[in-house]
Amino acid sequence: MIRMDWNALDPGEREQALRRPVQLAQATTAAAVSAILDEVQRDGDDAVRACTRRFDGIALESMQVTDEEFAVAGSELTPALRAAIDEAAQRIARFHEAGMTSAYALETAPGVRCERILRAIQRVGLYVPAGSAPLPSTALMLGVPARLAGCAEVVLCTPPRRDGSADPAVLYAARRCGITRVYKAGGAQAIAAMAFGTDSIPRCDKLFGPGNAYVTEAKRQVALADDGAAIDMPAGPSEVLVIADSGANPAFVAADLLSQAEHGPDSQVILLSDDDVLIDAVSAEIDTQLDALPRADVARQALTGSRAIRVGSIAQALDISNRYAPEHLILALRDARSWLPRVQAAGSVFLGDWAPEALGDYCSGTNHVLPTSGAARFIGGLTVASFQVAITVQEVEPRGIAAIGPCAVELASAEGLHAHRQAVVLRLQAVAA
Amino acid sequence: MIRMDWNALDPGEREQALRRPVQLAQATTAAAVSAILDEVQRDGDDAVRACTRRFDGIALESMQVTDEEFAVAGSELTPALRAAIDEAAQRIARFHEAGMTSAYALETAPGVRCERILRAIQRVGLYVPAGSAPLPSTALMLGVPARLAGCAEVVLCTPPRRDGSADPAVLYAARRCGITRVYKAGGAQAIAAMAFGTDSIPRCDKLFGPGNAYVTEAKRQVALADDGAAIDMPAGPSEVLVIADSGANPAFVAADLLSQAEHGPDSQVILLSDDDVLIDAVSAEIDTQLDALPRADVARQALTGSRAIRVGSIAQALDISNRYAPEHLILALRDARSWLPRVQAAGSVFLGDWAPEALGDYCSGTNHVLPTSGAARFIGGLTVASFQVAITVQEVEPRGIAAIGPCAVELASAEGLHAHRQAVVLRLQAVAA
Repeated sequence: MIRMDWNALDPGEREQALRRPVQLAQATTAAAVSAILDEVQRDGDDAVRACTRRFDGIALESMQVTDEEFAVAGSELTPALRAAIDEAAQRIARFHEAGMTSAYALETAPGVRCERILRAIQRVGLYVPAGSAPLPSTALMLGVPARLAGCAEVVLCTPPRRDGSADPAVLYAARRCGITRVYKAGGAQAIAAMAFGTDSIPRCDKLFGPGNAYVTEAKRQVALADDGAAIDMPAGPSEVLVIADSGANPAFVAADLLSQAEHGPDSQVILLSDDDVLIDAVSAEIDTQLDALPRADVARQALTGSRAIRVGSIAQALDISNRYAPEHLILALRDARSWLPRVQAAGSVFLGDWAPEALGDYCSGTNHVLPTSGAARFIGGLTVASFQVAITVQEVEPRGIAAIGPCAVELASAEGLHAHRQAVVLRLQAVAA
Repeated sequence: MIRMDWNALDPGEREQALRRPVQLAQATTAAAVSAILDEVQRDGDDAVRACTRRFDGIALESMQVTDEEFAVAGSELTPALRAAIDEAAQRIARFHEAGMTSAYALETAPGVRCERILRAIQRVGLYVPAGSAPLPSTALMLGVPARLAGCAEVVLCTPPRRDGSADPAVLYAARRCGITRVYKAGGAQAIAAMAFGTDSIPRCDKLFGPGNAYVTEAKRQVALADDGAAIDMPAGPSEVLVIADSGANPAFVAADLLSQAEHGPDSQVILLSDDDVLIDAVSAEIDTQLDALPRADVARQALTGSRAIRVGSIAQALDISNRYAPEHLILALRDARSWLPRVQAAGSVFLGDWAPEALGDYCSGTNHVLPTSGAARFIGGLTVASFQVAITVQEVEPRGIAAIGPCAVELASAEGLHAHRQAVVLRLQAVAA
């Protein structure tokens, strides 16, 4: 990690210290993805199959996972893993259900009833990556809120393995969420298929889930296309920012930084501390723990670009964090809760020494699909509401329009919208008659 | 309006009947807007001033509206208009406040407290058009929820008039919402200024509000830019779909269709009815009412592309409406409420004969910034939540990680993420020790 002292940096250096690395070769990715999207729009399933041969190295006749495959998948898992998926699903459901938006109605004036009703988005597409590692936890994070929202059609795409099968844990997790339509397709081709529809893969209204640079770019492109699909949020490499005081446990902090670093070479890791001794101890711990990691090479690459910043105070650290707006924020502080009111922008916050990010990733109950790249300034993580639309309704009695109609008439006149005015005036006349 | 019989159309014709016209000359707009964005990023205020000279025909030294200008604006309005703005603001606040998202917390396991906290988006930019007509109502629809959310910095841009002043009703409405930073700037240059920041106009995290094709395209482009801003929703021309039965009042229906048609030549107007007599009567009423409209030319253009479709039943009309997903849906039906459960996708619904769209546009209490172009399939209109971010939090005691840690360990192992596993294992060991 690069060591820095925040108070020794000038404004330009501070900006540089918090700058996220530009996504590599975005122009190349954009062109390649655009070609795949065109191919899938033109040739449908044939194009998806061709891409699967090209990128996943497997020729699949049918992409849809059969009942038999689901059954086999379940039997392949250890009872302990099945139980862990079940347990995580339950806890995620409990937290998400408690936060569901409700319908409401009120009389805003006598005879004017306004309300909000909620509808599930009809057709949603979930993407579960399986590149460097299969991610059954992501299937839960997408599938549980989709089920709670009551989406009529839930489609899940995940890349096939070399033998043509889908990861059994992903399949088990999908079924756990009531998802029956799973397709073995990955990358930009899967996003294109769900956005535009093919003979076998249904067209979806909104797409969800993380992915590599190709998936991310494909989501960006279909969100822009006139006939494309909406997406959950902009995506970038995963990030953690840890604020640790002198009382923090260096081994815990190092482990948390490494959990982020092992995600990928472009993972973002930042440590802020007001204590040099702690920063030294964490650095030493990172070196020790790295040796035991199977994905040490990936983590090392990520750490090359990451920063350990000495700050003047914890308050300053919070200001820096708000400016950076991290996806994950760990407050390894003695009085972590007392600092929470200062948190202005972050995807998910972990308070104290006993809340590693890994708990939120898997099973505390919160969602792990969170805003990256500073998007926490303006968007939160996935919730059930991400799978719903809110519709407003107004029901007006004759006495209602008599009460509020004159206000509308006055405003329509001011805006020079005479037909608007007339639509109200005609009714006011009818009520008065 | 073009008359059609739904049940006489083949699938291709049905698709055509519900197709929205492609935005004209989007490629030209895109290039022009991109040039303006570049100019503003490079030259800041100078570029905004140059564009204002070019497009609004006025040379402005200072763009920011002064206290004196606010004071003058207030005195220019009639007491009746001031009262109407106050009244609408109150009703909008009442409805929006009742629907605010709440923070919540629960123990998802013993010693694991998960919660959602809410934060206002810090810096928001509101755009209030004033092209064909100034829109004080839009200032309320944006400003009221921004105030309820508690956004720290609220910036509002609205195009200057030829004499260099801002519309007084817009200024009064802005002040009514506690907005003090109003800038006389419009079009793509205003969006660029709020997205990237200039010396005088602060950079914003998220931009809100409707606008013409240039504003819409500018919002689309800044939402894509790496260093741009988020936007409220994709935007397109305004739309209404009216479902009317034989008992509907033809004059009311005609007035509602015309209120939409007068917005612009690209406004979308669709009438669905199971009764030919009603359709005939509405057509006749439209002709009569058109003659009295100052904006008759605009409305006539919009009506040229609009459709009156005979359906087999009201149930079929609801299916068609759900497929179209209109911004505004008027149910001019005898038993309007009983049909509401069938509404799957719409921005705002108006039940019965006494709820013209104009009420929702101005003062029923609901928001008039609503999804267009079929976006109602996946997004709702503006709410206070549009101006907030939700952050999840987890606080874990030692007994909490003892309870759920093993679940995380199992899942991290299945996903091959050993540092994640280790971050939990180290703590489990410490708790057990």
